[in-house]
Amino acid sequence: VNWLVILAGGRGERFWPLSRTARPKQFLRLLGDKTLLQETASRVAGLVDREHTLVVTGRDYQALVAEQLPGARVLAEPVGRNTAASIAWAAFVVRREDPGGVMAVLPSDHAVGDVPQFSDAVARAMQFAGREGRMTLLGVKPTRPETGYGYIEIREPSRPNQVVPVAAFVEKPDVKRAEAMLASGRFFWNAGMFMLPVNVVWQALEQQLPRVVAAVQASDRPDQFDAQFRALDPVSFDVGVMEHSRDLSMLPLDVGWDDVGSFAAVARILANRAPDRVVWERVQDVTVIGDDGPWIAGIGLEHLVVVRTPDAVLILPPEEAQAVRALVRQLTTIERGSEIT
Amino acid sequence: VNWLVILAGGRGERFWPLSRTARPKQFLRLLGDKTLLQETASRVAGLVDREHTLVVTGRDYQALVAEQLPGARVLAEPVGRNTAASIAWAAFVVRREDPGGVMAVLPSDHAVGDVPQFSDAVARAMQFAGREGRMTLLGVKPTRPETGYGYIEIREPSRPNQVVPVAAFVEKPDVKRAEAMLASGRFFWNAGMFMLPVNVVWQALEQQLPRVVAAVQASDRPDQFDAQFRALDPVSFDVGVMEHSRDLSMLPLDVGWDDVGSFAAVARILANRAPDRVVWERVQDVTVIGDDGPWIAGIGLEHLVVVRTPDAVLILPPEEAQAVRALVRQLTTIERGSEIT
Repeated sequence: VNWLVILAGGRGERFWPLSRTARPKQFLRLLGDKTLLQETASRVAGLVDREHTLVVTGRDYQALVAEQLPGARVLAEPVGRNTAASIAWAAFVVRREDPGGVMAVLPSDHAVGDVPQFSDAVARAMQFAGREGRMTLLGVKPTRPETGYGYIEIREPSRPNQVVPVAAFVEKPDVKRAEAMLASGRFFWNAGMFMLPVNVVWQALEQQLPRVVAAVQASDRPDQFDAQFRALDPVSFDVGVMEHSRDLSMLPLDVGWDDVGSFAAVARILANRAPDRVVWERVQDVTVIGDDGPWIAGIGLEHLVVVRTPDAVLILPPEEAQAVRALVRQLTTIERGSEIT
Repeated sequence: VNWLVILAGGRGERFWPLSRTARPKQFLRLLGDKTLLQETASRVAGLVDREHTLVVTGRDYQALVAEQLPGARVLAEPVGRNTAASIAWAAFVVRREDPGGVMAVLPSDHAVGDVPQFSDAVARAMQFAGREGRMTLLGVKPTRPETGYGYIEIREPSRPNQVVPVAAFVEKPDVKRAEAMLASGRFFWNAGMFMLPVNVVWQALEQQLPRVVAAVQASDRPDQFDAQFRALDPVSFDVGVMEHSRDLSMLPLDVGWDDVGSFAAVARILANRAPDRVVWERVQDVTVIGDDGPWIAGIGLEHLVVVRTPDAVLILPPEEAQAVRALVRQLTTIERGSEIT
């Protein structure tokens, strides 16, 4: 059967003050009435039962997952050890119950514009993966020469809805390389969305990452699991498994995908929404993010993002969105600052 | 004896969201631990007893005055009818108890840098006014060619601490005129600070504004007072009395005076203060006004004022401070906006 594995271990430091240590980005209503985690599950709700949904997260967030996705199974990691370990644990659990199953592995904190088309793509890729016994990625059609993502290379420019063989993986490129890749039509963003026949991925894990496999096999023995899991080196599934695998496939995806990597991305997605409890006088291109907290009023402003919460308001131009992390680090050194991180 | 008459009828619309209809500017801790009203009284506390302190304000604000200046007498006007009526009512009350008294009439919402020197000037001017039986103004030595104030003209450039005769009053000038007046050394800002022998001012009021006098004489008969007071035309003390009076005197004042006319002025005064619960990353020339409410965080900002309250945060460049009124008007037309005005 179809399984959904949601990777929800992120800390969301770039989303302060909306996200806090106790409530990272994936658990926030950042773009609408549902949290990003809930949106991730609901996009494929027609393909996977809730009882076949696994959420891999940190122990601190078990309660949040239970609250937001009741009925889903939570795999609560003692510490974060990157995606290879998370996917391995999920594969161990699924394989025991359903050795013929196919897992759709999805990040918990991305945005998708065209949900029906996305859902179709996942269905098609899962079906292909199961039928052919091949690990199959969704590759996002690039819309700009992005230097912040890894790319998936295919041999010939793709046609829509056609699964094609993967030729190679490309690390984050420089701008020149990124522009050439964009122009060629043969490179797709690796957004971390994997459709995995559980027996196939388990075999690959056994070959490539035997220590990870041993650790997750100990998950039923709490006395051993913690220590073994903690002792693992953090390795991503891309580096630890995908890049050593042959016979990978990819389905191109062109659905208005966004990794919601910063407030700049949120502002872009929300730009046309009329926010609640805001009053402007001669204000242009200013986006208010966050529905709780004080009224926001502005006069004579341009090109800003205002992030609103009940106990902290952050003001910045969107270009500065990457500096939120530095601000949070500074906060932890300020008197009373840690109260709000 | 010495009397203090504080004019505290202002509505403070330019100070939203700090000021609200229910709590105008003079009742706020805008510049320190005391409210502007309390600072006004405390500056001359060595000269006037609390029992000889009168505060003229609107009826809605009686409780605030009682709370902030316990022991002061409150003259609560049914409606605002400008300063001539306020001062006339105070003069009526004082004259009945102390026909030989001298009133220091001061606005409730100004800032003074050098308080001891200010207090000396008030003492000197009150003494002069009482001894000579002359209405005596404090004239603020101008520091810029301000076009927003009226000016007091004297015949020759003044020497410090010397009371001199007033030659004329000048309405708000244009820039060119203001520059010439500044250069001459013979023109001073009319800041609405009057030292008035009560019998002298009462006589002037009887001559110039008999209807106002009749109205305040009815203040003991509530059934008549309201209607008579409401029926008055609003007239300022400057236009209604000062400009028709001869034998006026002026004492020059050079004490870092500010009328705190807008958030730009508040930001100027507070510029060097380190505000509480603020965190910046590469921020220059941004002033946070208001101690209650959320943390304020900023990244990559320049030349702004942020006004903080628990239920509204206003962001603007200081040059836009005059537009706060328009914003408040807009608020009253917005759904739920009137909840916070």
